Amino acid sequence: MNNSHLLLSIAILGGTGKEGKGLAFRWAQAGYHVRIGSRSADKAITAASEIEKMLGEGITIEGLSNLEAARGADIVVVTVPYVAHRDTLESVKNELHGKILIDVTVPLVPPKVATVQMPAAGSAAQEAKEIVGDDVQICSAFQNISHEHLLDDEDIECDVLVTGTSKEARSETIKLVEAAGLRGWDAGPLENSVVIEGMTSVLIGINKKYGSTHAGIKITGAKHSTD
Amino acid sequence: MNNSHLLLSIAILGGTGKEGKGLAFRWAQAGYHVRIGSRSADKAITAASEIEKMLGEGITIEGLSNLEAARGADIVVVTVPYVAHRDTLESVKNELHGKILIDVTVPLVPPKVATVQMPAAGSAAQEAKEIVGDDVQICSAFQNISHEHLLDDEDIECDVLVTGTSKEARSETIKLVEAAGLRGWDAGPLENSVVIEGMTSVLIGINKKYGSTHAGIKITGAKHSTD
Repeated sequence: MNNSHLLLSIAILGGTGKEGKGLAFRWAQAGYHVRIGSRSADKAITAASEIEKMLGEGITIEGLSNLEAARGADIVVVTVPYVAHRDTLESVKNELHGKILIDVTVPLVPPKVATVQMPAAGSAAQEAKEIVGDDVQICSAFQNISHEHLLDDEDIECDVLVTGTSKEARSETIKLVEAAGLRGWDAGPLENSVVIEGMTSVLIGINKKYGSTHAGIKITGAKHSTD
Repeated sequence: MNNSHLLLSIAILGGTGKEGKGLAFRWAQAGYHVRIGSRSADKAITAASEIEKMLGEGITIEGLSNLEAARGADIVVVTVPYVAHRDTLESVKNELHGKILIDVTVPLVPPKVATVQMPAAGSAAQEAKEIVGDDVQICSAFQNISHEHLLDDEDIECDVLVTGTSKEARSETIKLVEAAGLRGWDAGPLENSVVIEGMTSVLIGINKKYGSTHAGIKITGAKHSTD
């Protein structure tokens, strides 16, 4: 992988949803090559052109099928609803060898979305590892972010806890978190992803009980490199 | 249970450890009757007299065996290391009917204490439920607090997320959190305890990686009743 982030290419699978569009917007703005993927290339092209209009002159975003988006990318981000998680990963897994896969999926099981209900693998991220195999570095991140704010350049009062299969992959992912204007923390091995995925259910419950819409978390008592 | 907290009696099992002593100190100061329990009544008596010396004139704390401490209490708090969790609960379960049990246990499995490793039940709190049965209300709380600060009246920069088997039990537990000078949030059903127990491993890892000693978490973006 090239170390200059200006040359890195990021595929965002399921990039036509709110999370995907918001991340695409922020990363394109930060200088990354962004490739939006969708099951339908047409939808991806539409989403890409919508985001391009919000960006400065001369910044382009590609719209492609998930497979094509993953094929040309250095880093592949999955932002699909949990119900499409397995199929999406199966469909692109041959394109992931030697790359970093960043899984944003929260395994919410309606109707009890405020109750933690993890898949048998332990978490969506560990399930991703079972699907794509051991020669892909996997990180898990961005699950607790209120995605509406990603698209409007607002400050987001929520830290991003990054878990992953290696320290190096977590470090690369934290760079992307910071490029998106957020504070990222190394939260340890992929087994810890259950905490961050599950926190989304806790925050959904807090929003309901306390009348908020954007409950988030911040790490306290530790000094971050960006402080 | 009596609604006047001044008449409520709290047993702290494993109350000779740092967490137990710190909670005993803060709750006694707030007007609760505190009963420290230990496997050895002698050790409990010693701990109780240590804490009494730190408190104002006329405030007393009892030291008893775990069984005796639980027997006379309205609320029973378990603050034992995970290795003693099952035995402690088995030894007092006949004294818990109709009471609230607050489980503070974090199921750390050395040497990988920065990796989330939950018991088969899903979390220590769910395991407690399996042990003590359905006629005990169980809450889980205080896992992310750096317990050294409880004993010295310092402000603690960490929220307490409370999960539990009923809204009423969570509400009672949040009163105790606030009596201890902390901010408590209703974090939903006991199934969500995995998030808060597991967060302790994430925070241990952050302390190690970022050179901190008291990493904690705060909920953002929601208005708390005490704000």
